[in-house]
Amino acid sequence: MNKKEIKCILERVAKGDISADDAVLALKAAPFTDLGFAKLDNHRALRQGQNEVIYGEGKTASQIIKIVSAMLQNGEKRILITRLAADAAEEIKSRVPITYYEIGRIGYIGEKPAPDTEGKLLVISAGTADMPIAEEAALTAEIYGNKVTRIYDAGVSGLHRLLSYLDEIMSADVIIAVAGMEGALASVVGGLADCPVIAVPTSVGYGASFGGVAALLSMLNSCASGVCAVNIDNGFGAGYVASMVNHKKSK
Amino acid sequence: MNKKEIKCILERVAKGDISADDAVLALKAAPFTDLGFAKLDNHRALRQGQNEVIYGEGKTASQIIKIVSAMLQNGEKRILITRLAADAAEEIKSRVPITYYEIGRIGYIGEKPAPDTEGKLLVISAGTADMPIAEEAALTAEIYGNKVTRIYDAGVSGLHRLLSYLDEIMSADVIIAVAGMEGALASVVGGLADCPVIAVPTSVGYGASFGGVAALLSMLNSCASGVCAVNIDNGFGAGYVASMVNHKKSK
Amino acid sequence: MNKKEIKCILERVAKGDISADDAVLALKAAPFTDLGFAKLDNHRALRQGQNEVIYGEGKTASQIIKIVSAMLQNGEKRILITRLAADAAEEIKSRVPITYYEIGRIGYIGEKPAPDTEGKLLVISAGTADMPIAEEAALTAEIYGNKVTRIYDAGVSGLHRLLSYLDEIMSADVIIAVAGMEGALASVVGGLADCPVIAVPTSVGYGASFGGVAALLSMLNSCASGVCAVNIDNGFGAGYVASMVNHKKSK
Amino acid sequence: MNKKEIKCILERVAKGDISADDAVLALKAAPFTDLGFAKLDNHRALRQGQNEVIYGEGKTASQIIKIVSAMLQNGEKRILITRLAADAAEEIKSRVPITYYEIGRIGYIGEKPAPDTEGKLLVISAGTADMPIAEEAALTAEIYGNKVTRIYDAGVSGLHRLLSYLDEIMSADVIIAVAGMEGALASVVGGLADCPVIAVPTSVGYGASFGGVAALLSMLNSCASGVCAVNIDNGFGAGYVASMVNHKKSK
Amino acid sequence: MNKKEIKCILERVAKGDISADDAVLALKAAPFTDLGFAKLDNHRALRQGQNEVIYGEGKTASQIIKIVSAMLQNGEKRILITRLAADAAEEIKSRVPITYYEIGRIGYIGEKPAPDTEGKLLVISAGTADMPIAEEAALTAEIYGNKVTRIYDAGVSGLHRLLSYLDEIMSADVIIAVAGMEGALASVVGGLADCPVIAVPTSVGYGASFGGVAALLSMLNSCASGVCAVNIDNGFGAGYVASMVNHKKSK
Amino acid sequence: MNKKEIKCILERVAKGDISADDAVLALKAAPFTDLGFAKLDNHRALRQGQNEVIYGEGKTASQIIKIVSAMLQNGEKRILITRLAADAAEEIKSRVPITYYEIGRIGYIGEKPAPDTEGKLLVISAGTADMPIAEEAALTAEIYGNKVTRIYDAGVSGLHRLLSYLDEIMSADVIIAVAGMEGALASVVGGLADCPVIAVPTSVGYGASFGGVAALLSMLNSCASGVCAVNIDNGFGAGYVASMVNHKKSK
Amino acid sequence: MNKKEIKCILERVAKGDISADDAVLALKAAPFTDLGFAKLDNHRALRQGQNEVIYGEGKTASQIIKIVSAMLQNGEKRILITRLAADAAEEIKSRVPITYYEIGRIGYIGEKPAPDTEGKLLVISAGTADMPIAEEAALTAEIYGNKVTRIYDAGVSGLHRLLSYLDEIMSADVIIAVAGMEGALASVVGGLADCPVIAVPTSVGYGASFGGVAALLSMLNSCASGVCAVNIDNGFGAGYVASMVNHKKSK
Amino acid sequence: MNKKEIKCILERVAKGDISADDAVLALKAAPFTDLGFAKLDNHRALRQGQNEVIYGEGKTASQIIKIVSAMLQNGEKRILITRLAADAAEEIKSRVPITYYEIGRIGYIGEKPAPDTEGKLLVISAGTADMPIAEEAALTAEIYGNKVTRIYDAGVSGLHRLLSYLDEIMSADVIIAVAGMEGALASVVGGLADCPVIAVPTSVGYGASFGGVAALLSMLNSCASGVCAVNIDNGFGAGYVASMVNHKKSK
Repeated sequence: MNKKEIKCILERVAKGDISADDAVLALKAAPFTDLGFAKLDNHRALRQGQNEVIYGEGKTASQIIKIVSAMLQNGEKRILITRLAADAAEEIKSRVPITYYEIGRIGYIGEKPAPDTEGKLLVISAGTADMPIAEEAALTAEIYGNKVTRIYDAGVSGLHRLLSYLDEIMSADVIIAVAGMEGALASVVGGLADCPVIAVPTSVGYGASFGGVAALLSMLNSCASGVCAVNIDNGFGAGYVASMVNHKKSK
Repeated sequence: MNKKEIKCILERVAKGDISADDAVLALKAAPFTDLGFAKLDNHRALRQGQNEVIYGEGKTASQIIKIVSAMLQNGEKRILITRLAADAAEEIKSRVPITYYEIGRIGYIGEKPAPDTEGKLLVISAGTADMPIAEEAALTAEIYGNKVTRIYDAGVSGLHRLLSYLDEIMSADVIIAVAGMEGALASVVGGLADCPVIAVPTSVGYGASFGGVAALLSMLNSCASGVCAVNIDNGFGAGYVASMVNHKKSK
Repeated sequence: MNKKEIKCILERVAKGDISADDAVLALKAAPFTDLGFAKLDNHRALRQGQNEVIYGEGKTASQIIKIVSAMLQNGEKRILITRLAADAAEEIKSRVPITYYEIGRIGYIGEKPAPDTEGKLLVISAGTADMPIAEEAALTAEIYGNKVTRIYDAGVSGLHRLLSYLDEIMSADVIIAVAGMEGALASVVGGLADCPVIAVPTSVGYGASFGGVAALLSMLNSCASGVCAVNIDNGFGAGYVASMVNHKKSK
Repeated sequence: MNKKEIKCILERVAKGDISADDAVLALKAAPFTDLGFAKLDNHRALRQGQNEVIYGEGKTASQIIKIVSAMLQNGEKRILITRLAADAAEEIKSRVPITYYEIGRIGYIGEKPAPDTEGKLLVISAGTADMPIAEEAALTAEIYGNKVTRIYDAGVSGLHRLLSYLDEIMSADVIIAVAGMEGALASVVGGLADCPVIAVPTSVGYGASFGGVAALLSMLNSCASGVCAVNIDNGFGAGYVASMVNHKKSK
Repeated sequence: MNKKEIKCILERVAKGDISADDAVLALKAAPFTDLGFAKLDNHRALRQGQNEVIYGEGKTASQIIKIVSAMLQNGEKRILITRLAADAAEEIKSRVPITYYEIGRIGYIGEKPAPDTEGKLLVISAGTADMPIAEEAALTAEIYGNKVTRIYDAGVSGLHRLLSYLDEIMSADVIIAVAGMEGALASVVGGLADCPVIAVPTSVGYGASFGGVAALLSMLNSCASGVCAVNIDNGFGAGYVASMVNHKKSK
Repeated sequence: MNKKEIKCILERVAKGDISADDAVLALKAAPFTDLGFAKLDNHRALRQGQNEVIYGEGKTASQIIKIVSAMLQNGEKRILITRLAADAAEEIKSRVPITYYEIGRIGYIGEKPAPDTEGKLLVISAGTADMPIAEEAALTAEIYGNKVTRIYDAGVSGLHRLLSYLDEIMSADVIIAVAGMEGALASVVGGLADCPVIAVPTSVGYGASFGGVAALLSMLNSCASGVCAVNIDNGFGAGYVASMVNHKKSK
Repeated sequence: MNKKEIKCILERVAKGDISADDAVLALKAAPFTDLGFAKLDNHRALRQGQNEVIYGEGKTASQIIKIVSAMLQNGEKRILITRLAADAAEEIKSRVPITYYEIGRIGYIGEKPAPDTEGKLLVISAGTADMPIAEEAALTAEIYGNKVTRIYDAGVSGLHRLLSYLDEIMSADVIIAVAGMEGALASVVGGLADCPVIAVPTSVGYGASFGGVAALLSMLNSCASGVCAVNIDNGFGAGYVASMVNHKKSK
Repeated sequence: MNKKEIKCILERVAKGDISADDAVLALKAAPFTDLGFAKLDNHRALRQGQNEVIYGEGKTASQIIKIVSAMLQNGEKRILITRLAADAAEEIKSRVPITYYEIGRIGYIGEKPAPDTEGKLLVISAGTADMPIAEEAALTAEIYGNKVTRIYDAGVSGLHRLLSYLDEIMSADVIIAVAGMEGALASVVGGLADCPVIAVPTSVGYGASFGGVAALLSMLNSCASGVCAVNIDNGFGAGYVASMVNHKKSK
């Protein structure tokens, strides 16, 4: 609840429009819809400039449909669902028009918006197996109004593949670097770019990769400045924060 | 080495100004100064828009003086030294005019630049003990041309302290959240802000804080979108990436 | 075996009612029923004021039925079964009248008791996915005679949702805070409440949440005083200890 | 900030006593004193029923003196300082009258209050080396108005030592169990008591005790119900939460 | 190869019975049968006084049958197979007469030997779920000629259950203590017994039990002397080493 | 891209054969085929002297067929596919002639080359269960032109089995030691051999083997000099690096 | 308290020699001396057949002197102090006649007993740096009445050194194997011996030895049967349990 | 002991030159010198082609002098001492002529040999702080007869520094890559080279570098083939194994 809203309530109290008791209630009136198993945060778009996203993992198709319905009734035009299984998407589609991106496991209700910023957002991934997470990041960024360039399978073991995209790297406004195994991609890209690099470790690998821990540690210890990290396999988080960077308010 | 530089060398070959052999040498001519124990990256300002920083930890005062001297000879006007011990700073001061910020353990040679962006960069820390890292972040950001607002000792156990700064949080362009122990500050700030939050876990705490690991994990798993993390105690890294966000090129 | 029981046996020896040898036997006579694969602790209600609970995980329906039958023969009126799978519950129901709570995976034989304390026990959970563990805690507390208020899906990323329940938090006698991911809920609630907060980390999350470890560490390192933690996903344990707090003997 | 305070401000606005703008300021007026490096939480006694405690570790004697002075000026009568080194205590004593408890490393300003509850709070520790943490817990509980019984060096390897205190264990209202190494004390006590057991793992041990991790895990996995844990070596936290349990508001 | 065997070969060389070249071959002649995928160690009975055991996990029934056949041809009378799945046992039974112990997942070919030592070997387990590992240990010990007493479901949370077996504990020659969760059983038993306690952590538990790590650490850090540990779930290993203790050669 | 290639392009510029702009393009012209989901590194054979290998895990049969087809079109004669499931191999075989080695899970297209070095490459494994990884290593080495000697099931618990191969060990040019559990094989072999030992920890084991971590740590801490390690279960990597050692260029 | 003692007290009650109340007191009368900071377990010799040992680490010389004095007054003839620093030993010597073994950091009061068993106890260590722990084990065993054979610096990297002691290994009744780094010694010895091997991991090593964890894991995962482990650097524990094995009661 | 030696002894027995008993003794006669605290492995040069190295860490100067003296008496001409502190070196120098390399902490007795192989051994390090370990590796390699090229401070964050040495990398016979922090250097070099890359993680870094673990994991998970790793900070081990590679026997 921001200053303006508090002030507004207080002024109505001052004018006698509402009693102090009602004001307390109003101040406490939660701007969310309670579905029993979930509380929809209706004001998030106001407060954070973005719709609430539905994290699909562990939710049944019918649970998702209930949440989506409530959000649509609430006036939402665009709804993003991450970690959405193909079969759940199929089931939802029978009830609500939804676009499903299989590789990135993302469902989207509403029209995909045109980019509303000129900033260049680059998504680079190390290997073929990192593609689902890279796509989750790229689609998230597109849905939040960014123009996205994808460079996939450009890991450091074949450095010339990466270097052939030097121009794209050096002219980007924000980069998402997606890599599993040893995650060296983030450091190499970080050393070449002059913009923030959001590193996404993936759980790709085996043995001492420990489900993405090796890549995560690598990224947190990057010898290149300008690199920060999100959770393992958190493509959505990377797309979200990169979009925030790319939509910076002040100039 | 960027495209323009490669092209320039090639054009001189094409004109016969230099031979192919010399071009190879030129392409390979490392734009760095070799001190034996260190290679100064003279072109970094060009490539990344920032001076190279000296990481002071584990370097003797005389090693730092050698590097600084070489950089000054190389024409550098402003040099940042992080993790600089007070006594080493004292010793350096006898040779080179240096400003030393004790809490943030930062030394700076040259004139601190005025902010060159209108963006608001906020540094929030959880407890008194997190202040050295918060200051490292704040000073780094100032030195790279940002206007910094500091809110210290505003941990979530006294939520009203944090909420009293709601306006600053909601109007920021980028926020650095510094916290040890359980690191919950990043999530709470991330839920209130609509700009990127760079989370810095600190090694403050004891027992199961494992030298900052608890805070780091907390930040990586933040339930709030828009949060990304740097290494434990990496105040410099947070200041650097936040400055990059705050200086975004495209509008 | 407590002082009174020992004394009683000794007095019977002193009176010649029983021989010393029999007393040794009596002292050693285990107050439990041996089923071969399990020893029922019949005296626990005396000793700890609560019935023994059956931990259902890893037990077959027929094993549970055997234990339940022995307990009923032993005169037990109320039996609590945790981590009970839906199909096992179904099978048990065909033999013994049992109430099954699906979300909390709890089975209960006997009549659910009315609250026998005026204390207010609050269960707050961070996200929808934490609900099974929150329900395990809430039901356990209800079964042990507490009046329970549930506040679900009130994580710190939407702080206003949590703050809208400030009154409930500030007037509680004991709070169970259930959260996965970064577990910041416990610290924020701990900073607002003036009663013990029993924190339950859940295994909800992915990547660097490490199956609940991130939340656990966060809770153990809480910057708020008055927070203590139970094992990951241990909703029963939290409900049990919270009930103990809420039934404090001395005033 | 609780409901009553919000309502009070609103009523004054309603009466025209203060303007809406001032109310916003008042709502935001932080009830803390800003010392630059620390924000004193003056309202905590109101909000949580306890004074703020000063965590002495990592603070210089002069920093502590500054905080103490501000708190005394603020009208505080009783101030608790934990993890206070003997020499810092000596230095503070020259400025402010302070009682110093060396084993528990606790300093206390003001008169130690008489117990204000009839509940029995028991502190049991496993070995001689656990005594500093046990004393930190016991003194904290005493300072917050509890009558404390101490049973030290009663580890499970000499079970008869522990069993000789069976009466005390079975009649307690809340127990703090302090143990390093394998931490088995908590489970054994938890199996004997019918009140909450706050387990404090200590960093006592070597090798695979991993600085208290073995004891912590042992306590979190306790097979006895009614056990919850605080951070490694967190004697203060255990004393604080045990005092909360022992001062339960509702009957 | 022991001294006597070496000496024997050398004496035959000295007598001219075999050439030096043949002796080299003989010395190198591996006392094992090579099945391609496994080398049977035929001399182990001589060298270690025990038959080789077949570790069944990960082996197909037909692989086991091949190994068993080779061992029988090699003159083995008694063969122990651990971690043998019920269906594999069924398949083997159709080819070779085998006794299968389902709970302990052990298969045995040959006649179970009578105890050949008077020593008392005790197997104590903490909970019902630890029974498979306890049985693996107990059966192993029986097969290697020990008289085994079993005390199951005697965890420390119901201390009187354990104490009712004080005589058995105090008169044992070697004890195997099997426990998951916090593994406190080993310390309590270790404090009561005056013989070696072989502790077996089990993977029973959830959350912060980390698949047996909590119990393992607890056992390694036991405050009671006389406790040593084997790998998590290694019932066979415990039975084997306990049998060795119980068959000590010298008096 | 190596010096000669750069020089060649530059000379063509110098001669006016190509423009500077074209040269930039040429320098950047990626020597790879882009399949969308993968970039084939066509020059690797030139650069590293070996064909690119396809890591089969997590790839569908049809994805592998697409990559193989592109490589064959690209003129590749020999293609190695690791971690290839039996059913995928079956599916591929219907389209492309492929040899499948089931135990080592390796597929190979083209004719297996004869050894092109006289060096002796030895693969030793500790137990039967380590055979798949040992075979992955051995087959990889054979495919890259090495003569391989296999010694399997020669773990250190039956030392005479290992010692009977002393000659092979002492005359090898490079050894691959494959072991799970405690991984002691690498140290023992390393102490006997006078050539590099490439140690491969396997995930064979249970409990505190932690999926190969125990063996990995054992190998990294080997008291024998001359031992280095690859990732857990990385038989291919060991075969590859051992082949490199065995094909050393200079004498 | 064992059966005989309980029975004895009960019989006195039966005869009217003591009242039931006194019997309760007697049963609870702790057979220990309370020094305030320590409870001496006077009956341990009866119960476990051994004197209580003083763990010297973290205790001041004066604390140790107090404990020793109380034990001597209590009639103890022989007192063992482990982890005793040289300077503390010096200080104690000025008050009490004590023998100090510097390498093993062991102090002993009283006359070192002659071996009271014919069993052969062997202590083998891997490297020079493991000697302090090996000596702690060997001296402990000697003090508890064992004849000890020491074989030091016999690590597996020079296998012939170890094999030259084959006779001693194969004729031992119990072996203590002490090793840091990768701890392979335990497996190799375990494969050669036909008696229990008590493995002691030491914190010798660096990097990925993680203070003894690598050796500990290696020992727990030993491929040789008959190996069990104690805590890292726990020489005393190994000596104690090995002595128990070597003094087995029944034949 | 190799085949030839065994055969020789056997032939002497066959000829009656020595008795069988003496042969056993001879076979067991340990080819080492026993200093009490260390066993010198005199035959290692024969068996492994290299002198034994003295690991200086944790050894006093006088201990080292004793070992060195015994080795010189034993006829050793060249002795390598690693991890030798400067002051210990000073003390040794007063007794034995020794060359001390301060950065690499290596002492050498005897004449440094000329390279005895044409192979090119390259040591590349990432940062200035990695230099001690890089020097330990480089000096070890030189002492074992290799020609070493050093490229220091060439981390991937300034990729052009590394690429300027492309020729050296591509023409090397074996490379040692030394890096702390995220260790990405190994992967990048591994992708450029066509020879084995021995990766040495260093403990350089802070926070989530965990004393070299991040770099170690990165190197073990390298996406480039041909990379293997040694222990953290094990410069000697890398130099030793690289020398073995560079001295490969067969061609």
